[in-house]
Amino acid sequence: MAASSSLLTYSLQEHASTETAIKRCKGYMYGNLCSSYSRIGYSKTKFLTSAKFSHNENSSNWEHIQKSPMRNEILCRAVEIENSLSPFVSKKFELDDVIESQQFDREILNDIFDVAHDMEKIEKSSSKSQMLKGYLMATLFYEPSTRTRLSFESAMKRLGGEVLTTENAREFSSAAKGETLEDTIRTVEGYSDIIVMRHFESGAAKKAAATAGIPIINAGDGPGQHPTQALLDVYTIQREIGKLDGIKVGLVGDLANGRTVRSLAYLLAKYQDVKIYFVSPDVVKMKDDIKEYLSSQGVKWEECENLMEVASECDVVYQTRIQRERFGERIDLYEQARGKYIVDKNVLKVMQRHAVVMHPLPRLDEITVDVDEDPRAAYFRQAKNGLYIRMALVKLLLLGW
Amino acid sequence: MAASSSLLTYSLQEHASTETAIKRCKGYMYGNLCSSYSRIGYSKTKFLTSAKFSHNENSSNWEHIQKSPMRNEILCRAVEIENSLSPFVSKKFELDDVIESQQFDREILNDIFDVAHDMEKIEKSSSKSQMLKGYLMATLFYEPSTRTRLSFESAMKRLGGEVLTTENAREFSSAAKGETLEDTIRTVEGYSDIIVMRHFESGAAKKAAATAGIPIINAGDGPGQHPTQALLDVYTIQREIGKLDGIKVGLVGDLANGRTVRSLAYLLAKYQDVKIYFVSPDVVKMKDDIKEYLSSQGVKWEECENLMEVASECDVVYQTRIQRERFGERIDLYEQARGKYIVDKNVLKVMQRHAVVMHPLPRLDEITVDVDEDPRAAYFRQAKNGLYIRMALVKLLLLGW
Amino acid sequence: MAASSSLLTYSLQEHASTETAIKRCKGYMYGNLCSSYSRIGYSKTKFLTSAKFSHNENSSNWEHIQKSPMRNEILCRAVEIENSLSPFVSKKFELDDVIESQQFDREILNDIFDVAHDMEKIEKSSSKSQMLKGYLMATLFYEPSTRTRLSFESAMKRLGGEVLTTENAREFSSAAKGETLEDTIRTVEGYSDIIVMRHFESGAAKKAAATAGIPIINAGDGPGQHPTQALLDVYTIQREIGKLDGIKVGLVGDLANGRTVRSLAYLLAKYQDVKIYFVSPDVVKMKDDIKEYLSSQGVKWEECENLMEVASECDVVYQTRIQRERFGERIDLYEQARGKYIVDKNVLKVMQRHAVVMHPLPRLDEITVDVDEDPRAAYFRQAKNGLYIRMALVKLLLLGW
Repeated sequence: MAASSSLLTYSLQEHASTETAIKRCKGYMYGNLCSSYSRIGYSKTKFLTSAKFSHNENSSNWEHIQKSPMRNEILCRAVEIENSLSPFVSKKFELDDVIESQQFDREILNDIFDVAHDMEKIEKSSSKSQMLKGYLMATLFYEPSTRTRLSFESAMKRLGGEVLTTENAREFSSAAKGETLEDTIRTVEGYSDIIVMRHFESGAAKKAAATAGIPIINAGDGPGQHPTQALLDVYTIQREIGKLDGIKVGLVGDLANGRTVRSLAYLLAKYQDVKIYFVSPDVVKMKDDIKEYLSSQGVKWEECENLMEVASECDVVYQTRIQRERFGERIDLYEQARGKYIVDKNVLKVMQRHAVVMHPLPRLDEITVDVDEDPRAAYFRQAKNGLYIRMALVKLLLLGW
Repeated sequence: MAASSSLLTYSLQEHASTETAIKRCKGYMYGNLCSSYSRIGYSKTKFLTSAKFSHNENSSNWEHIQKSPMRNEILCRAVEIENSLSPFVSKKFELDDVIESQQFDREILNDIFDVAHDMEKIEKSSSKSQMLKGYLMATLFYEPSTRTRLSFESAMKRLGGEVLTTENAREFSSAAKGETLEDTIRTVEGYSDIIVMRHFESGAAKKAAATAGIPIINAGDGPGQHPTQALLDVYTIQREIGKLDGIKVGLVGDLANGRTVRSLAYLLAKYQDVKIYFVSPDVVKMKDDIKEYLSSQGVKWEECENLMEVASECDVVYQTRIQRERFGERIDLYEQARGKYIVDKNVLKVMQRHAVVMHPLPRLDEITVDVDEDPRAAYFRQAKNGLYIRMALVKLLLLGW
Repeated sequence: MAASSSLLTYSLQEHASTETAIKRCKGYMYGNLCSSYSRIGYSKTKFLTSAKFSHNENSSNWEHIQKSPMRNEILCRAVEIENSLSPFVSKKFELDDVIESQQFDREILNDIFDVAHDMEKIEKSSSKSQMLKGYLMATLFYEPSTRTRLSFESAMKRLGGEVLTTENAREFSSAAKGETLEDTIRTVEGYSDIIVMRHFESGAAKKAAATAGIPIINAGDGPGQHPTQALLDVYTIQREIGKLDGIKVGLVGDLANGRTVRSLAYLLAKYQDVKIYFVSPDVVKMKDDIKEYLSSQGVKWEECENLMEVASECDVVYQTRIQRERFGERIDLYEQARGKYIVDKNVLKVMQRHAVVMHPLPRLDEITVDVDEDPRAAYFRQAKNGLYIRMALVKLLLLGW
């Protein structure tokens, strides 16, 4: 909150450029009390120039993205409205969009987790359960991911918002029609207040965010990012273990291809005294880029062949699925890899009482079903935490802190 | 209502086991006034042991299904909350889930029909039309059935509730991923308050109910059950004819494969002095199990070749579609069977003034379109009654009586 | 408004027939204050005979369509209710359904545009944003059109209404089942208050409207009509240019196959002193029927080969996509046609300051992307206007003026 407060002061006082004025306007517009939201909100898309920026000074690779040009009279009216409303509105969220894990530093993660935790406590007929009344989310899925889509749609509806759904977004750019992603986004942003996008191409979410005048959330873009998954994983560790500094995490399974474990390793590097164990079949070992990154951040890591040993040491055993589709024709290598590290009752026996088993789901047989009934099986709670994280992000992007 | 009242007393006073305490807690939690619903509701899934049971003592084959284990501290908190709320909450519905026709006896059917009839009278902007505000239904369809899905979604929305939709639920367990139904249910129950499931495998709904901590409604599981269809059929007879005791029903068409007519025959056996006529081509005759069941229950039945004769006798002519897909390669047998018994104007002529024609829809040509305009054509009203029955069931499962 | 007022007087005083009584009842029932809506509304479908009619006396080809017969007692009750409510309700919209452009004359267009303009100003948490609370739209799409579907669903939800979605409506009449469109409509109207239908067959919407007791909106029926697109085009010209009388419009691209430009030409003929330029490759020239119609209505039109010349003259350059699918095997003709008339920066240079470029979307390369940033690029605003037009139509059909 301090962070966001200082940011707000900064944007209100230290800049006088056109861009800043618009940024300020955009921030206020998301406030609950902005009585002119819809009119200006609807105009924004067409006219605003706005810089996308990250609150995190470390993430310099998160570049400023230019919006399309504007007409001056619109700008002027927007600034006027800003001034008249400023005493009432909530503080803007530092991010305009949620595109990649690199946007989040430790401080903002912590604040988001506080909001997520508040979300757990919202009661069914309370006024908080209607905080997004009148807001519309469009879920724009270029490939099906029912689990992720339902989680986002539930998040929106649990806060009183509404959803426009499509799992058929490829139809926008079907062979016969060939519309660009940018044109699709410009159309859909006319119908909604926030877009959750799943795409098959890495970088698609960033492209969409550069075009859109409304917030974009990346719900996975091909082999690229799936930032809400990374956030819910870290949130789950925090909720289950009670801390992030000083934890020991065993990452198990397909570490070469799993974007989940890569993102998790990346985010864990933001905390103190973290120790990571990599436990994986030879063919799907963690790649060097992450190892080098961890070393550069002072994170201790170790490759280990013995799951039992790691399990007895760790606070978190994070199991993943060996994905057949990554092996192409080499079914033999797949079969060899998938059976090697299974989390079962024997693994539970050596784990500490406070430790937990996590998994991004879906699972096949890499965790046996008899593990489910152990209180340390945290994976369904983890899936549920995805709901709270998404509620928090949608709330923050639309209403601010 | 008396029935449910006595049940409530029973569960409050005569048991002191862990299971009963939880069951009581579960009942209260669905009440309108439970201010801690969401927190406990969300925990329940992870921890509760609860026995599924039927109010109907006759249905002993509806076995107790064990839920997953719990942590004691959660149980204690649940029981505390129960006590503090008990004076305010409504009476729990006797069923935790709607899985099969065998769960319903005459008394509970009657009570459900009363609620369904109340549903017909709910006005658009009345407070009753918002009774499920804040509740989320997930429709989990493993095969498309647009008619049934829309009926359930309309039921939920007519009561102010919200819906998460998927007609693509097979994607959860796609070849590449292979998630079990149980895992899918555990995930989806985290996002919603009630699950309506359509599946291609008999028994899938029961399996889902055994896993879920929230209510499951079976919207058809393959060749198995489709209990809401059976209920709406009986409700329609009651609404159209004004009684169920003493009625005469002609079941026409594909009696061998139609789960609709089989379920209907089963439920009609709960009433007094019912007479059933079976009118079907030889290849799709009613099977012996139902005939024997009817006889054992003292229901008179008769096989009859003459539709006109039956039509002149009956209160209800229940026509069904001969399903081509049941005949495989034997198109000749199909063609022979489908044309044999058609309900047309000539059939109407011999029917009594108060009698009605019913059909589960969709129809092809087994009822001619000129029948539609006759007031005795009840099949579109029957479809509409499906809405009221589903409104009633959703209300009862989520809020109790 | 005057028009509708006189219509109302007419229907209240000059007729005493059964049909008129019902029509009056139907009108009132859509009013906000009709406390008995749901009961009667639900009955209507089954019993009412009602004439569909157009307010526009010119459109005599919009014939009266008979509804299904009724029971007298229902009629009587409906009329009673009408009388008791008449002082409170809003004025009925002149149309029961929106099926084709021919239903609209200049006066009603103008009134609809006023309502659409009001829609732009509705604020997020105002009471107007909830005016359709309790109403259900079913979107019944027999072929996917995500853009159109999202636009209608957004319109409904922006007014507080709810939506039942299917993009899978073909499943209703799948090979195995073979249900007629009429039967599907009779079922779906039992679940909803208004149906938006997209179909692959010309005339399907009219057929649906003839069956339904609730309003039908045609969201495109094959090569037939797409009236809401035509309305949003005319509305956009009015909003962007400020007038319709006296405007000069250049229609560019595929004028032979594009139903959009044909409908637009048809509607423009209702205004004074309009001049239309046709700019198209030889193979896709505007057909004679429209040219003859324009001449008969006194509209000046001209075929022109020089896009620059037309662009410098016109208030509106309406570009369209050359549709590959119209050329079958003749890819050579397609390639030749598609590159011929491109709207780019050079075209913008000759256009007047107040003029605009429109396009029904999706676009390929017939407008270059560098045009997007010019304030005269109106096509995304045009898409957004589709939302307002659809909000207006849904409001008018359900609540009246």
